[in-house]
Amino acid sequence: MTTFDEAKAAIEGLTLEEKAGLTSGLDFWHTKGAGPVPSVMVTDGPHGLRKQRAAGDHLGLEDSVPATCFPPAVGLGASFDPELVGRVGAALGAETSIEEVAVLLGPGVNIKRSPLCGRNFEYFSEDPVVSGVIGAAWVKGVQSQGVGTSLKHFAANNQETDRLRVSSEVDPRTLREIYLRGFQRVVEDAQPWTVMCAYNRINGVYASEDPWLLTSVLRDEWGFEGLVVSDWGAVNDRVAALAAGLDLEMPSSAGRTDAKIVEAVRSGALDESVVDRAAARVAKLALAATSAKRVEGPLDVDAHHALAREAAGRSIVLLKNDGAVLPLAKDADLAVIGVFAREPRFQGAGSSLINPTRVDAAIDEIRALSSGDVVFAEGFTIDEAAPEAETARLRDEAVAAASRASTAVVFVGLPARLESEGFDRSTIELPADQLALIDAVASANPRTVVVLSHGGVVALPFADRVPAILDGSLLGQAGGGATADVLFGDVNPSAKLTETVPVRIEDNPAYLSFPGEFGRVHYGEGLFVGYRWYDARDLAVTFPFGHGLSYTSFAYGEAAAATTADGDLEVRVAVTNTGERDGREVVQVYTSLPGSAVSRPVRELKAFASVALAAGETREVVLRVRRSDLAYWDVRVDGWVVEGGAYRVEVGASSRDIRTTTDVEVEGDAVFQPITRDSSLGEVFADPTAAAALHALLERTGAGGLAASEDEGIQMMMASFPVGRMGMFGLGDEELEQFLAAANAR
Amino acid sequence: MTTFDEAKAAIEGLTLEEKAGLTSGLDFWHTKGAGPVPSVMVTDGPHGLRKQRAAGDHLGLEDSVPATCFPPAVGLGASFDPELVGRVGAALGAETSIEEVAVLLGPGVNIKRSPLCGRNFEYFSEDPVVSGVIGAAWVKGVQSQGVGTSLKHFAANNQETDRLRVSSEVDPRTLREIYLRGFQRVVEDAQPWTVMCAYNRINGVYASEDPWLLTSVLRDEWGFEGLVVSDWGAVNDRVAALAAGLDLEMPSSAGRTDAKIVEAVRSGALDESVVDRAAARVAKLALAATSAKRVEGPLDVDAHHALAREAAGRSIVLLKNDGAVLPLAKDADLAVIGVFAREPRFQGAGSSLINPTRVDAAIDEIRALSSGDVVFAEGFTIDEAAPEAETARLRDEAVAAASRASTAVVFVGLPARLESEGFDRSTIELPADQLALIDAVASANPRTVVVLSHGGVVALPFADRVPAILDGSLLGQAGGGATADVLFGDVNPSAKLTETVPVRIEDNPAYLSFPGEFGRVHYGEGLFVGYRWYDARDLAVTFPFGHGLSYTSFAYGEAAAATTADGDLEVRVAVTNTGERDGREVVQVYTSLPGSAVSRPVRELKAFASVALAAGETREVVLRVRRSDLAYWDVRVDGWVVEGGAYRVEVGASSRDIRTTTDVEVEGDAVFQPITRDSSLGEVFADPTAAAALHALLERTGAGGLAASEDEGIQMMMASFPVGRMGMFGLGDEELEQFLAAANAR
Repeated sequence: MTTFDEAKAAIEGLTLEEKAGLTSGLDFWHTKGAGPVPSVMVTDGPHGLRKQRAAGDHLGLEDSVPATCFPPAVGLGASFDPELVGRVGAALGAETSIEEVAVLLGPGVNIKRSPLCGRNFEYFSEDPVVSGVIGAAWVKGVQSQGVGTSLKHFAANNQETDRLRVSSEVDPRTLREIYLRGFQRVVEDAQPWTVMCAYNRINGVYASEDPWLLTSVLRDEWGFEGLVVSDWGAVNDRVAALAAGLDLEMPSSAGRTDAKIVEAVRSGALDESVVDRAAARVAKLALAATSAKRVEGPLDVDAHHALAREAAGRSIVLLKNDGAVLPLAKDADLAVIGVFAREPRFQGAGSSLINPTRVDAAIDEIRALSSGDVVFAEGFTIDEAAPEAETARLRDEAVAAASRASTAVVFVGLPARLESEGFDRSTIELPADQLALIDAVASANPRTVVVLSHGGVVALPFADRVPAILDGSLLGQAGGGATADVLFGDVNPSAKLTETVPVRIEDNPAYLSFPGEFGRVHYGEGLFVGYRWYDARDLAVTFPFGHGLSYTSFAYGEAAAATTADGDLEVRVAVTNTGERDGREVVQVYTSLPGSAVSRPVRELKAFASVALAAGETREVVLRVRRSDLAYWDVRVDGWVVEGGAYRVEVGASSRDIRTTTDVEVEGDAVFQPITRDSSLGEVFADPTAAAALHALLERTGAGGLAASEDEGIQMMMASFPVGRMGMFGLGDEELEQFLAAANAR
Repeated sequence: MTTFDEAKAAIEGLTLEEKAGLTSGLDFWHTKGAGPVPSVMVTDGPHGLRKQRAAGDHLGLEDSVPATCFPPAVGLGASFDPELVGRVGAALGAETSIEEVAVLLGPGVNIKRSPLCGRNFEYFSEDPVVSGVIGAAWVKGVQSQGVGTSLKHFAANNQETDRLRVSSEVDPRTLREIYLRGFQRVVEDAQPWTVMCAYNRINGVYASEDPWLLTSVLRDEWGFEGLVVSDWGAVNDRVAALAAGLDLEMPSSAGRTDAKIVEAVRSGALDESVVDRAAARVAKLALAATSAKRVEGPLDVDAHHALAREAAGRSIVLLKNDGAVLPLAKDADLAVIGVFAREPRFQGAGSSLINPTRVDAAIDEIRALSSGDVVFAEGFTIDEAAPEAETARLRDEAVAAASRASTAVVFVGLPARLESEGFDRSTIELPADQLALIDAVASANPRTVVVLSHGGVVALPFADRVPAILDGSLLGQAGGGATADVLFGDVNPSAKLTETVPVRIEDNPAYLSFPGEFGRVHYGEGLFVGYRWYDARDLAVTFPFGHGLSYTSFAYGEAAAATTADGDLEVRVAVTNTGERDGREVVQVYTSLPGSAVSRPVRELKAFASVALAAGETREVVLRVRRSDLAYWDVRVDGWVVEGGAYRVEVGASSRDIRTTTDVEVEGDAVFQPITRDSSLGEVFADPTAAAALHALLERTGAGGLAASEDEGIQMMMASFPVGRMGMFGLGDEELEQFLAAANAR
């Protein structure tokens, strides 16, 4: 691996113009070369390689070379399995290396603040620990092949509406605990070669020119050692961005911004060392990429397709399975309904659109596994302008097929035109004709299984009316085969929801503030994103965060938790596969701190493990909750603080299916808050030294008799009284200063 | 009335020390005199005069002279009747004048953001128009007697927790439209002699030292001509406060802060004219108060008690009356249950506590009006530590009484110890023993009427289990008589809820952010306070804002709305009393703008009228919606903007009982937003001049072909692209400047 010193040496002989030139793209996809520094290529991803075949397309949306389309983040994240994600990452890295691309632009670890965000399919979860753990596994996997990743979109980029300008107005604690925590985890655990700064502003400052974000937090606090690249077109003021820590502007600016950098150095407005630093980081990336051992091609299309099928099978969530309708018998007569069974919706629209090596259709794969009669009916059309008569005809045909079959399997979902990078949805409803189809089919055949395809969460008003639902979100090119595997039980489903399915959009925390107006969006719900909100407000949901069933069942023993030598929590729980099929359970650990001094969610996911258990097998699962994940962001000290106390540790199969609970005492971080004029008498009385000083003061001066009142009402009122305003009770300035000195004497 | 010039003349001969001295109190309740400027007294209120009998009590909580205790704001506001409120105000002003007090410290027009705020009983509503209209009527009434008022607590003082320091973090639009709108109305309509600045910070700045709040907004924008006084102890930095526009510090600082002012002038840190201005305002107040014609005493205690009874009767909300259980027959045999019938809870605790001239107990007043058998049972005790056996005995006794009576009337409510100025509640539940009592009594006698006494909203889990509920909130000293009047139908109830009764506190908008931590509280719900939230999220409520029944019924004709010459809306609707009793209806006008460019509540109250209608009478009610109340606060121009369009005008008997709807076209304010580098292509295309300039640019340069793409997806993505980043598509800086000039040419 190239060191930063080697990179610095490589740019030593370059002119200022050459160095400035290194800090912006050669074209849409390449960095510039200069002297010993080679030009390298980066490409979109992240769930496959999108290497454009032709240049000259400004938005870079032209045809790309075929690549394996693995499940997008929305699918893969539901596996809750870093090991699987690592293998997918390694395969992606191999494809990247074979194509001589230096960096695959992913993963996206932004939080799904609203289900309406058009790009949610590219993100993992509404939870930062899921996003961080899965994101880190992905980065390690890709980078194991000698190519880089780009952790994006840094940061608080949670909507598409007005995305190039909008300011995400978010308080410091929420920013740290929810929106930055996943990024922090990926940087600290996996050191991505690059981080991609987001388009948007955060609290008024463009992410691309925010020194606090790009340097203080990312490098100084988290220890990031790679390069910061702009999202394509995210640079507003190039010189400000460079100074803030944005090393590489993409795409090319045709030299215009390079010239501005040179001019700023010449005029003394910018120190040349800033240019050197950025150029050296670009050089380091290029040298590392070109010196890494290439994976030899050609791509093993079949092997990667098989992995894509395995990953897709691990991404399918069994939401419901009343009466064990699933798995289907292989000799059952089936009605397979819905155009998505023939023309799968398997990836999202926008810059991540992969040209797949092949695509499995569910209907073909079902037929391949089935020995029964399989009838297909289109059911509906994804054509927006379908005449009502055509809609009715398709529905009638589907109902007829369903009524003749033992089981109906209905494939519904969001057409690609309804969700994409670049715009947000305005509703979480499925198209009305699809909902009507489900109702009609379910009336005709009570054994109706619904299979969902969608990038963002959709409402499931039919959840009580059908016995079984498979949530396939987006599964990549092998999703059709994986769906058949799960339908027939060749794969036992084990995925879990990474995002709550709400009853209705009105219940969503961001409902009234998303997507903002006039360039600002207020994150008014604060920490209470996703299940944190639904649980705190005790709202009914259709399916909770972390939910997912299996064809077998799991029993949990009693959890035990203890602190380790390094301050983490080790949680142990015995889990038994009590059914007759082998299966996997995603064991989830949530914590809370009853009686905390700060506002907290009812529970927060802190650790999870995907555990394979043979039928009848029991295993002790050991999970580690990092001490750093117990910390809250304390605005008083502008830092992380672990509050001491008896933490509640809940272990279960979903956020609303807690199976065992235990408490563990955690020693808190020492936080010394000096007594100031702003401190309240309540705070003074809570600190023994300060309280003693106050009593002495009151005795000496006779001032503030009321502060010593034994009347409960007066005590309550006085507790909030600031020390500095005791002049109201006759206290002089000098006495106050003496008191403050005594109160803070340690 | 003393002019400001006369006041300036009065301080002309004073020394700097004397002028500085005028800007702080002489003691707890008096201003200082100097030269021709007299010392005057101010006292707490606002629902009665709290003139302390003895000096020397630092918090001013000692015994006060007897005064009529009118219904506190929580009660009086429910009348929705400025005429009645004006008469109560005049009576309060008369008592103030008789006692030679210059200023009665009220009204409080803060918004009830959370039902938990301990001081909600001193405020009118969760709605700013109600708060503003009722507040202005109160000020006009009081000031008609030659004494002053103090509009408080300015501003965004919506909780008691940490009230002397907490920063209310609220976005500009919410601050203007919700938290300042009521203050603005009172200042503009009624010119209170004084405004009292709040204890808290707003967005980090103490209200007491915020020049934007105390001068730019209050005086420059709203035209306030009076004096700004501190809440008692609200001054943090006296010199900063004076400079910001805080004229009078209360209470006395024993000269310490006067000296600081003198020192600041001498050192050049503060301009002497600032001291002059504040001193002249104090002089103006003192001279106006002392030159006003005194109301001659003694107080007509009986007449004021009668007015208090009338006002209390108009403050009682009939929440429910199934099967016309109410009014009661005078000869009915009654079980009157609950200690509050004997020991009324009629006002709130804290600085507003009045020493009433007399107090009516409901049980006595019921007996006075009844010709039947009236049995009293205590029912419960307000003693926190009552033994379970005692609780059971009281309950059993009540049940026995109820089962023998034709109707049971149960008086329940919040004991004074559970709510007060100085602390917030942690729950909206009534005490468990009272809830159990209601259940037991209702089981024993289905004709059970519940009468509520409380300062803050309480949950009503029994709402479906009893046929009738009277909400008496806090009714002042004559509440017992007024309750009897309403129970027997001598008064036909006409009050309406000024605050939503939610099903549970978890549904409240501020539930997850109130009361904040570490000195900050985020108003994350933004505009969506009270019914604005429940309606926007389509949440069930127990009783909606504006709800209140009558013993008669009202029919609404079709509403018509038109714009007036001065731009207001005039709304006309015929209302008929369709029952057989005379009564009053509070007609409510809500507006909305479907398809608005900004986020808006589903409906917002903009006008209301309390209309007396004899049985069978029809009257055309004419209501005026001010154009200024249609405006939203536009953060782009930092000003009020009326958006043009077809406004929906809903007229009804509550926020969820809309009887008639009409639309009216309103011409919008012209808002010119120049095209800048930050403007999006979507904004450019929306402006014909700018769009033409862009097309010309694209033709000339060939740049940005994608901006002209006809692909719908690309168009959507491009619409959000900022003009200034078109360099990405090959546009040069000079061309960009030329375009901007052409786009903005008008």
